[in-house]
Parts: sequence; C-alpha cells; structure tokens
Amino acid sequence: MQLGLVGLGKMGFNMRERLRAGGHEVVGYDRDPQVTDVSSIAGMVEKLTPPRTVWVMVPHGEPTKSTIRELSGLLESGDLVVEGGNSPYSDDQENSALLAEYGISYVDVGVSGGVWGASNGYGLMAGGDAADVERVLPVFDTLRPEGERSRGFAHAGPVGAGHYAKMVHNGIEYGLMQAYAEGFELLAASDVVTDVAGTIKAWSHGTVVRSWLLDLLVRAMEEDPELEQLQGYVTDSGEGRWTVEESINNAVPTPAITAALFARFASRQDDSPAMKAVAALRNQFGGHSVKSNDD
Amino acid sequence: MQLGLVGLGKMGFNMRERLRAGGHEVVGYDRDPQVTDVSSIAGMVEKLTPPRTVWVMVPHGEPTKSTIRELSGLLESGDLVVEGGNSPYSDDQENSALLAEYGISYVDVGVSGGVWGASNGYGLMAGGDAADVERVLPVFDTLRPEGERSRGFAHAGPVGAGHYAKMVHNGIEYGLMQAYAEGFELLAASDVVTDVAGTIKAWSHGTVVRSWLLDLLVRAMEEDPELEQLQGYVTDSGEGRWTVEESINNAVPTPAITAALFARFASRQDDSPAMKAVAALRNQFGGHSVKSNDD
Amino acid sequence: MQLGLVGLGKMGFNMRERLRAGGHEVVGYDRDPQVTDVSSIAGMVEKLTPPRTVWVMVPHGEPTKSTIRELSGLLESGDLVVEGGNSPYSDDQENSALLAEYGISYVDVGVSGGVWGASNGYGLMAGGDAADVERVLPVFDTLRPEGERSRGFAHAGPVGAGHYAKMVHNGIEYGLMQAYAEGFELLAASDVVTDVAGTIKAWSHGTVVRSWLLDLLVRAMEEDPELEQLQGYVTDSGEGRWTVEESINNAVPTPAITAALFARFASRQDDSPAMKAVAALRNQFGGHSVKSNDD
Amino acid sequence: MQLGLVGLGKMGFNMRERLRAGGHEVVGYDRDPQVTDVSSIAGMVEKLTPPRTVWVMVPHGEPTKSTIRELSGLLESGDLVVEGGNSPYSDDQENSALLAEYGISYVDVGVSGGVWGASNGYGLMAGGDAADVERVLPVFDTLRPEGERSRGFAHAGPVGAGHYAKMVHNGIEYGLMQAYAEGFELLAASDVVTDVAGTIKAWSHGTVVRSWLLDLLVRAMEEDPELEQLQGYVTDSGEGRWTVEESINNAVPTPAITAALFARFASRQDDSPAMKAVAALRNQFGGHSVKSNDD
Repeated sequence: MQLGLVGLGKMGFNMRERLRAGGHEVVGYDRDPQVTDVSSIAGMVEKLTPPRTVWVMVPHGEPTKSTIRELSGLLESGDLVVEGGNSPYSDDQENSALLAEYGISYVDVGVSGGVWGASNGYGLMAGGDAADVERVLPVFDTLRPEGERSRGFAHAGPVGAGHYAKMVHNGIEYGLMQAYAEGFELLAASDVVTDVAGTIKAWSHGTVVRSWLLDLLVRAMEEDPELEQLQGYVTDSGEGRWTVEESINNAVPTPAITAALFARFASRQDDSPAMKAVAALRNQFGGHSVKSNDD
Repeated sequence: MQLGLVGLGKMGFNMRERLRAGGHEVVGYDRDPQVTDVSSIAGMVEKLTPPRTVWVMVPHGEPTKSTIRELSGLLESGDLVVEGGNSPYSDDQENSALLAEYGISYVDVGVSGGVWGASNGYGLMAGGDAADVERVLPVFDTLRPEGERSRGFAHAGPVGAGHYAKMVHNGIEYGLMQAYAEGFELLAASDVVTDVAGTIKAWSHGTVVRSWLLDLLVRAMEEDPELEQLQGYVTDSGEGRWTVEESINNAVPTPAITAALFARFASRQDDSPAMKAVAALRNQFGGHSVKSNDD
Repeated sequence: MQLGLVGLGKMGFNMRERLRAGGHEVVGYDRDPQVTDVSSIAGMVEKLTPPRTVWVMVPHGEPTKSTIRELSGLLESGDLVVEGGNSPYSDDQENSALLAEYGISYVDVGVSGGVWGASNGYGLMAGGDAADVERVLPVFDTLRPEGERSRGFAHAGPVGAGHYAKMVHNGIEYGLMQAYAEGFELLAASDVVTDVAGTIKAWSHGTVVRSWLLDLLVRAMEEDPELEQLQGYVTDSGEGRWTVEESINNAVPTPAITAALFARFASRQDDSPAMKAVAALRNQFGGHSVKSNDD
Repeated sequence: MQLGLVGLGKMGFNMRERLRAGGHEVVGYDRDPQVTDVSSIAGMVEKLTPPRTVWVMVPHGEPTKSTIRELSGLLESGDLVVEGGNSPYSDDQENSALLAEYGISYVDVGVSGGVWGASNGYGLMAGGDAADVERVLPVFDTLRPEGERSRGFAHAGPVGAGHYAKMVHNGIEYGLMQAYAEGFELLAASDVVTDVAGTIKAWSHGTVVRSWLLDLLVRAMEEDPELEQLQGYVTDSGEGRWTVEESINNAVPTPAITAALFARFASRQDDSPAMKAVAALRNQFGGHSVKSNDD
C-alpha cells in the first residue's frame, strides 16, 4: 500500500527499506536532505492519494507533537495518522483528539527491535479502533517478523494501548538487562569462574536464561570479553521512568524494574550525595574515618 | 561411552533417555524400582568397566553428600565422579577432597534446561581439571543442544566453577522472571491494554524482550490467559539465596536479583509482620485507622 | 494575632487549641457543626479584621482547591492565605497564581507531628515570600515546639518549598518506618532473641537507632507485644508516591524509600499477580508444582 | 564492682572512664602502652579477685577469638567473660562452648552509642543465662543511660542473643541512614527548597522524623552545609551484611536494609561492571552511543 513516513532516522530509515522491499510505496520525509524523498511534509502529503496513511517516526515530545499539528492542517477527513515513536501513552489522547477535529483517524504503535528490526522484523503493538488498525495491517505485516502474525503483532487495545504496551515492554527490558548485568558483575568479581565470557556464551542454547538480549551480550563480549573498553554510564530515554510512574499510579510493586532505573541514575553520578550523608553520619556517631575531598 | 547415573528423577530420567538416544551405554540407579536399571549403587558400579565415570544427579545437600560418600567406597583410583545436581559450589571442594583421597577425579556440572532439556538439550557449565572435563566430553556433547559446542557448554573453571556458574545463571533467572512478572502485573492492573495475553504473545518475535522464558509465559497464558487458576505462591530452592549471599561476599550490588528473591519470600507470607509494625506506627503518630484481626 | 482557620479535623482541631492556648484569636470553620465557630467560610471572613490571615487545613486535592477558590472571592487585596494541608507542591503554583489575581498573598506550610503536635508542638516548613512568611511568624512560633526556632521551623524557600520539604520529610518517614519494621520482622522470625519487645524497648536510650518513631513502636508493643492484633495492611496517602516521582524527575536513586512504598502496595494485595506469573513460569520450565485456586 | 577490660580503643577507653566515674574498679589492658593499666592479659587477671569478670572489647574475628582462647587458659572455674565487641552471633556458641570446658561463664553484649556513649550512656543488649547476666548488672547499670533500666538495657535471650540484637540494630541503622540520605539528596538535587540545611534542622523537634541520627546530620551540616568536603564513599564492617544474610536464612524480605547495604557497595566502585554490561547491550540492540574509556 501507499504510505507517507515522517522521520528517517535510525528506525525510520530502516523501516522504509523493509517496507519497500515488501512492495509498499513509501514517500519518506526527513529534515536531512540526504535521506528525504520530498522537500517538505506538505510535499509528501501531495504525493499521496486519499485516503492517505502517514506514519510518524520522530523523537517523542515536541518533535512528534509539532508533526501531528502540521499534519492536522495538511491531511483531510478520512486520512489516518500512525504514531510509531516512543511517546508516552498519555500523549495519544491529545494527538487523537486534535486529529479527530479534522476527521483524521489515529493509531499509535509501539515498535521494538532496534537496529536489527531491518532484517529480523519489528515487534509491533498497536492501539486504536479496530477499523483503523485493520487499514494499516498490510504495513504491519511487512514490518513484523515473518511467521505467525500473533507472535510479532498485537492490537493491544484502544488509542494509547500501543504506546502503553511498548512502555511496559521497555520497563521489562530494563529489568532483564539489569539481571544479566548483575550476574555478569558477580561472575567477574568472584574468582571462581575463570572463563566468564565462555560461561555466558554457553548459556546461549538449552538454558532457562537464553534470550535475544543474552545473544547480544555474547556478541559484545566476543569483541571485548571483559567489557573493559566501556564506561558504566547508562542514559535513559523515558520509558523506564514512565513504567515506574505507572506502577505507582496503579499501586503495583515493581522493585526489579525500579532497581534497574535507579542503577542507571547512579551510573551517571560522579559522586553520590546520599552516600556523603551516610559518610557524614558514620563520622558523627562513630568517629569512622571519611574520605574528604582534600585527601 | 559408558556411564553410571545415580538419580533418575525429573532430570536424570530424561538425561538417560537423551544419552541412550545418543548412543551411550547408561547404567542408571534410582531408589524407585520402577525406573532403576540396577538394585543398588554397588550393583551399578559392578556393571561399569574401569576407568568408570559416574554421574550423580540427586537433590543437593545430604542426598548428594551420602551418594558421594558411598561412591568413594565403591569406586577405585582412576575413576571419575560427575556431580550434576543443584549443589552450592562450596560443597564441591569437600566432595572433591574426599574423592581425591581414593584417587577418584571430580567434575561438577551445572545443568540447565528443566523438563525441556530432554528434547532441546541442556545448557552445561563444568568445573574441574581440563583432563577430567575432557574425559566426559562425549557425554556433554550428547546432553547439550545440537550446534556449536561453545553455545551450550563451557568449561567454566576449576572444581566448583560449574556449580558457581549455575548459581549465577539461576540468580539471573530469578531476575528475568521477576521483570516479566512485574510487567504482566502492570499490564493487568491498568486498563489501557485490553488484550494482555495477545500483547505478551506479540513480543515473541522481533522485540528486544523475546526469550525462551517469554515463550513459556505465552504458553502458560494460552492455557489460562489471566493466570487466574494459579496462586501467587513461589518457593525457592537455594540458588537465588546463594547468589545474593555471594553478591554480599563480593560486595556486588544485585538489587534486581534480590528483589526477585524477596518477592518470593513475601509471596509465602499470609500476613507481613513488617507491615504490622508500619500499621502500628501510623496508628500511633497519626491516629490512622488500622485493620485489626477483630475486624 | 487573629487567624481564620478552615478545617477542624484531627490536625486543625488540635492546632486551634494550641493557638488559643498561645493567646491567638482563632475563628475556626468546619463543615461539622459540632466543632465549627461560624456557619460558613464567608461568616469566618466577616469576623476577621483586614489585613486577614486564613489558614487552610483540609484534605489535599479538590477540598483544598475549592476552599482556595472560595477564599479568592471572599478575601481582599492585602489578605494572606496559608495552605497547611498535605498538598503536592505542584498545586501551590496554581493556588498562588489564582490568589495573586486578587492581590492575596500565599504561603504553603508543611506541618508534621500528627496527633502529638497538640502537646509537643508541630514541625513546620514554610514556602513563600519572606515578608509573607514573616507575617505568620507569631502563629508559627506558637505551633512549633518550644525552644530554638530553627529546630522546629524553617522558611524552606519560595512558594511550594514548604510542601516540597514536607513531601521529602514524609518520604524519609516511609523509609524509617520500613527499616524498623524489617528489623522487627527479622527479630520475630528468628528464635535467637527471645524478648523482642524488651530488646526494642532497650533501644530507646543510648543507641544509634533511638528516635521518636522508635518510642512509638515501643508504645505500640507495650499494648500488643507481638503486634498480633493488627493486620499488615498499610494505606498510603500520596506523599510517598510523590517523593518517588520527584526522585525519578530528578534522576535521584531512592531505593529504600521506594522499597517502603512498594511494601505498602504489596500489603494491600490479596494475592500477587506478579508471583502468579513467576509460579506459572517455574511450572512451565521445571514442572515445579504450583498452588492452584482449586487446592 | 571489679572488672577486667581487654581492649581500650575508641569504645573500651570511654567505657573505662564511665565505669570508673560510676565507682567501679577497672583493670584495663590494651596493646597500646599509652592507655593500658597492665602489661599483659595475664597481669590483668592476676589483679582480679575471683570470681572474676572480664569484659572483652576488641575487634571481631581473630582478635576476639584469640583473646577468648587466652582467657580460657588464664581464668578459672566460676569466672565470667563478657564479649562486648561487634561479633557475629554465630561466634558466641563457639566462645561459650570453649569457656564452658573450663567452667567459665559467658555473656555476649551488643553495645550501641558510638563515641557519644561516654557521656550519654550506651544502649546494651545482653545474651546469656539469667544468673550470669545478673552478675554483670552493676556494670550494665553504669554503662547504660540514666533513667529506667528497660529503656537502655535488655536481657535479649540466651547466649548469642545480645549480638543478634545488635546485628539487627545495626541493620536498622543502615536503613535509617539511607532514608535520611535519600531525602537529603532529593532536596539537594531539586531546586525547590532553597535552604536545605535549614529545612533538615527544622525537623529536629516536633516532626515524625526526629531522631538522634537526624541531630547528627544537622550537626554535620552545621559544619559543612552541603557536605561538599566529603566523598560519598562508605565502608561497611559486617553487621549490615549479616543482617541481610540472616534475613535470607529466615526468608524475611528486607528490601530497605538491603538497599542501604548495596548503596554502600556501589559507593566504593570507581565504575560499575554491571552498568558496563547494560551499556554494551543498549549499544548492541539500539546503536545507542556509549562512553568508552578512550573518550
């Protein structure tokens, strides 16, 4: 089918490739003249035959919101916008309501798979009305991995459900990575296992902990067996925070996912103010020595 | 090759099948007359041609220790014992030292894969001297999944390293399961995603969180989409505890794995004594109402 | 000085007593005719001489907001509103802006001390302009404990800082209570210490863990040494949640406070959906037995 | 009464002062000739009239064990040893059994209060037979804070109970300090409260979070309001680890205390190996940029 695609970054660029390889006609727009097919979003819209479908794949927050606003003025009743970025699900109501004023439908999609999605296919979670989701199904079927549709795609629920599912997916991802990371650190810290990289690689097949993330860890350790080239500095892009906030909103205890989030926060601190306070307290009551910045 | 195998429970029984299917000659002993090949461990040893290899696959603790003691009196110099149960790695030094007095070699192996290992093969982590591990390689090669040896088997280090690697593997497993479980609970508690089972199934392919454990969760939810037939009661068999203890011994922070362990502890409490104390405190300072057992 | 006081519940009622005992003229309003001094907020305002000071002490959220709205129509330029409830600090900007339209000043105050504040005095944290805070100082000086002002009162910062300080105070309170509660549970669960109540009471003086909360725990255990009359069911009223949300907003790891919050969430669950998922997984891969609801 | 005292470090030295001020006759021994009263433990024993009481106050582990061994050869039947160091309770059985062979009684005591105990008195938790504890009561009564005995002293249970109670006390202490520290960090990180030191000082009286530890934090911040002279580096001396290990042994969830322990571990790491693994994974699946050690 014909599709407009706004945003040709790491994700959008690969998706255009996969969609074209799957026989779809994609008109892509990006600010970067090296990769864009058209010179403006308006130009993209002009090239599409109504009823149009436009997939938005730009960073969440203002970039996505301003794109939606621009599209609301360019598209017409009967068209459909698919929002596939990593937006918080709370933005979907707003986007959907704005577009509905113009008779434009809205579907939100969580897209997982990273840079590997180009070849492996992307895991997709969609939110929206059944009829709207149905309309994009040919595109979803090309983007998702081959095989049974239900193993790479879900219509998760009404508008917002796609991004909500993606948020929880990413929260789980935080927890999974933290679990592997803790195990790696323990193996490395103790001196009982002498072949740490080989042991982790041995988990690839047959074990209970085998997973795609484990395969990636093995891959990283083949290049750098002790991960000594890297710094233990990890950013976060929002989804982990939203997952914990949502768990609080729903009174759901999520200690492992939260531990993963806090470990990232701590990884970016040069020194821990909290631990300064603990050091100060121990010094006060016990005369325990402290490390001062004059040392 | 020829192998004695003590313990034909859920794991040992399946391993015997897989080994025989792989062309090995297995003499199995179990207390259960329905499954045993011989009437005693002594009888098993008699049927083996020196230098013998005997694999012990019984519950950790006293059952394993008494089996090792019995074997130390039955085997002779040049024989080899493989300890494949879920023992703490600290038992391996003791076992190894005892057997060494009789000139009997010792290899410890962590075996992962559960009931699925029979068909998929088992992930294996071995500890011991290179020559001893080498001797058992034909058996390891049959038990492990087909394909590249290094993706299902590792010689992790000296005696104890196999069980240490398995301990960390299981600690990670605790963390992974907890992460999925928290995500499931959040999806179920919020009402944004209406097709929870379908969403989790959609993660099977293409996503960052795909894994064998996820496949099993999908499988469980196909039988019982809301898991309403089950109680949230989870036992633990030692490996998670040992992982946290070892993390403490090595000053390694393992918050996600520990959260998983504590969640299991809490799952088995009818009421939380700690939360009684918090309720008592809130009542004392704020006059906050409490639920008493008279209610 | 003269003061209007809206809200005569557990906190406001006691505060009126303490203020009157301190020589202030308090006109109190409450919906409850048994405790109110006047029949309406308008009636209260009429009895006050401009420039008026009105302290609002009602539940946070809509009750506080509607009171502020009502006061904005009744007070006049030069008057001052003190918001002393447990509101989130984010509400203060809104309240302050609304009142500013009418020339009415605004101070937010965090009030700690619970039902004991009546006799012990209340710990107070104020946010607002220096001149506004200064105006209420006579009231603050009566409400706070006797002694050095700086040990029971702080001008924490601009509008919002009072409630922010109270929010963090309560977050800490969650963590402190959880620490004592965990220690109590461990003492009770192990059988090494045979006099648990006596041991905790012995911590009252001289130890590093002595505190007012500990005194309250001792008091509770004097009535019920094993806390067996209580259920381990603990509600939460917002401040703990906001503290964790703010820690996320500021990328500050707060694992102990968050653990306390999650323990409360868990205390209110009949069964843990997350632990159902873990039980399901263990059953799938290991054939581990589960407790089903048919048992 | 008459008392031998082995170990005149930070704790023992102050205790000798307090005991002498209370009218007791103390013969103190220390390796340090500047502070010792006698030149050897044997010399100390000679100066005591049977039945003797000797208090051991040296570092736990080998120093305590070797002192106990030496005393077992010097003391005689009917004498009594009080072990007041920070030993793990599991050592008490061993110590007690060794001394019992010689007819020497044994009491273990947890002593809290740090350097302030000299003036404030020490919180004391004793383990042992009632008759033995009774014998040392005059000494306990002098060491503990003035006032009601039960608020500064407990006979917690049989041998081991004193150190067990102290272990749990210290575990709680970890949790309390962590809670204050997290609150401090959040106040400092956000810019809403402009007078952080003043706000924390205001919590000293009247609030729910008031405590001796808070007083110490106020004291530290009076010298260094932003704690900028200190490094966030915190050691640990065993009691926190043992508390978590015991909580695992008893299947008691202790997430706040454990969070405090893990925060100390992390405070001593230059870089987090676990976070290297997370950074590696994110780089693998998403092409997310990492900080390498070449940067």
